[in-house]
Amino acid sequence: MTRSPGFDRRTLVAGLMMAPALAAALRAAPARAQAAVLPSWNEGTAKQSILEFVARVTTQGGPDFVPPEQRIATFDNDGTLWCEQPMYVQLAFALDRVKELAPLHPDWKDKQPFQAVLAGDLRALAESGEKGLAEIIAVTHAGMTTEEFEKIVSGWLSTAQHPRFKRPYTQLVYQPMLELLAYLRANGFKTFIVSGGGIEFMRPWSEGIYGVPPEQVVGSSIKTRFEMRDGTPVLFRLPEVDFIDDKTGKPVGINSHIGRRPIAAFGNSDGDLEMLQWATLAGGGVRLGLIVHHTDAEREYAYDRQSHFGRLDKALDAAALNKWVVADMKKDWKRIFAFE
Amino acid sequence: MTRSPGFDRRTLVAGLMMAPALAAALRAAPARAQAAVLPSWNEGTAKQSILEFVARVTTQGGPDFVPPEQRIATFDNDGTLWCEQPMYVQLAFALDRVKELAPLHPDWKDKQPFQAVLAGDLRALAESGEKGLAEIIAVTHAGMTTEEFEKIVSGWLSTAQHPRFKRPYTQLVYQPMLELLAYLRANGFKTFIVSGGGIEFMRPWSEGIYGVPPEQVVGSSIKTRFEMRDGTPVLFRLPEVDFIDDKTGKPVGINSHIGRRPIAAFGNSDGDLEMLQWATLAGGGVRLGLIVHHTDAEREYAYDRQSHFGRLDKALDAAALNKWVVADMKKDWKRIFAFE
Repeated sequence: MTRSPGFDRRTLVAGLMMAPALAAALRAAPARAQAAVLPSWNEGTAKQSILEFVARVTTQGGPDFVPPEQRIATFDNDGTLWCEQPMYVQLAFALDRVKELAPLHPDWKDKQPFQAVLAGDLRALAESGEKGLAEIIAVTHAGMTTEEFEKIVSGWLSTAQHPRFKRPYTQLVYQPMLELLAYLRANGFKTFIVSGGGIEFMRPWSEGIYGVPPEQVVGSSIKTRFEMRDGTPVLFRLPEVDFIDDKTGKPVGINSHIGRRPIAAFGNSDGDLEMLQWATLAGGGVRLGLIVHHTDAEREYAYDRQSHFGRLDKALDAAALNKWVVADMKKDWKRIFAFE
Repeated sequence: MTRSPGFDRRTLVAGLMMAPALAAALRAAPARAQAAVLPSWNEGTAKQSILEFVARVTTQGGPDFVPPEQRIATFDNDGTLWCEQPMYVQLAFALDRVKELAPLHPDWKDKQPFQAVLAGDLRALAESGEKGLAEIIAVTHAGMTTEEFEKIVSGWLSTAQHPRFKRPYTQLVYQPMLELLAYLRANGFKTFIVSGGGIEFMRPWSEGIYGVPPEQVVGSSIKTRFEMRDGTPVLFRLPEVDFIDDKTGKPVGINSHIGRRPIAAFGNSDGDLEMLQWATLAGGGVRLGLIVHHTDAEREYAYDRQSHFGRLDKALDAAALNKWVVADMKKDWKRIFAFE
């Protein structure tokens, strides 16, 4: 997100505005134009598969043409669009909030799961299980209005830093995926985020960072209650899970929020398996499924079948079976982050 | 929706494509240009309020300018965009479905609430209350995949007729509101339906009839379950309520699906009260709330405080209090339906 010599965000945006023209040029003279689209993707089957898919569904009169209103693409967030290691960003947010709120709750020092959080004991936290996590969500994500929560999230993101990269989390988004989002939009796609993360945790920054407006963000949610307070309407966030947008929940969330089947879906973990199945294994016509495979411990992280966050096991097997593209971060991505 | 001499749908669309130019002309020469926008609205305070609101929020550099991405407008459906008398269209659908399915369920002849439906006894049906309605929804709206349900809805709408007007329900949409939807979109608004009706009941036709794509439809829903059937992913509709998008549910649904506060909201009943409060009583800047008041028994229906469907009582009082526009169908609408 910061400017680096010769390649800043403005240059990128200007380049992507020309993408439709470039796509046309691509069909006329592939070799020359391909260097200009998806510049952070190395030449290879992953990039080629994306370009071919887009060319096929956008070629008017062609056998695979898809009208623009049906060009729906869904993207997982954690591990697909931004870094999810060493833990989900939203979990880092929740833990920081517990620490910030602790002075108001002296009893937390002797009470799990809060004691574990305050002591930085992630093992004890993990042992508190789903019940412990629900208690942490309740005190950090509920008990305020939607507007108050938005301010808390934005405030935290403006100061919090990733422990390894020492940068704001919003800079730890994948440059090749930003280019892919913009390339698809330039070709008439409507891009949606479909994440296991909290829908209201993502909305304050999804438009600025990804160009995805709040109404195109699908995620997990807690319940809210409408109230009139001194003549002013508010939505109050309740400590009660409403919807978990993960695994089999992703097609449910897509159906609820979008109401059409995506023709392209992008994920990186077993949490995305059913979304990719839903997008690619029915509905007819040409489809694109893509898995981001974290293979680069040097520039980012390397993990798959054994990882605690973002485990990629069943979905990796399914990728081979269903001919989904597997983007190998080490091999396929020229750069990982914009600041490199 | 049918063509009538001198005013068919194509003419309308062509006219509305010019709306931004017309809006600019309007500011320069109000009297002449106003005849060309919202042609089915009579001159009067309702039409004037709409035009003024749109002019204010779209005037670049003006004190009330709203960037296009924040120009969100939400519309109730039943009684606001199409006719909701003598009963909600979706209820007519459900009752027809019970009759169609009855041969497979011989026990329904002696079992409430089905007996009441089969005998056409709406009083007995009403007496079965919410529990009875839930049973009817369960057998008519659940127990099939989302794709199967879509086909059932589309099939029914292609043959069912309104009992009084003897036309398909999809022709009983209000011409002035179609013009308003298109006028707002031509001025950079994103238009959403926010209805107490079923989200999947509306989506099969909302784009064709209103120009509102499925992803901009918010409504009530039942739960669905993801399943793989012989390698094909489906969503199976369960006989369990997921969300009721009515009254205090409307701001909740808006927040869940849109994630920003509308700057304009349109309704016709007490079910829309909280949506109009949410849209107009917070968030700052200029806002538009509009209530469609059914005052024309001759061309449509006249009802408000005592009506069983679409009761307008508290929201009518709130309109006076909050300076919402009340559109008097008899006085403000030159025509009600396109076929007139």
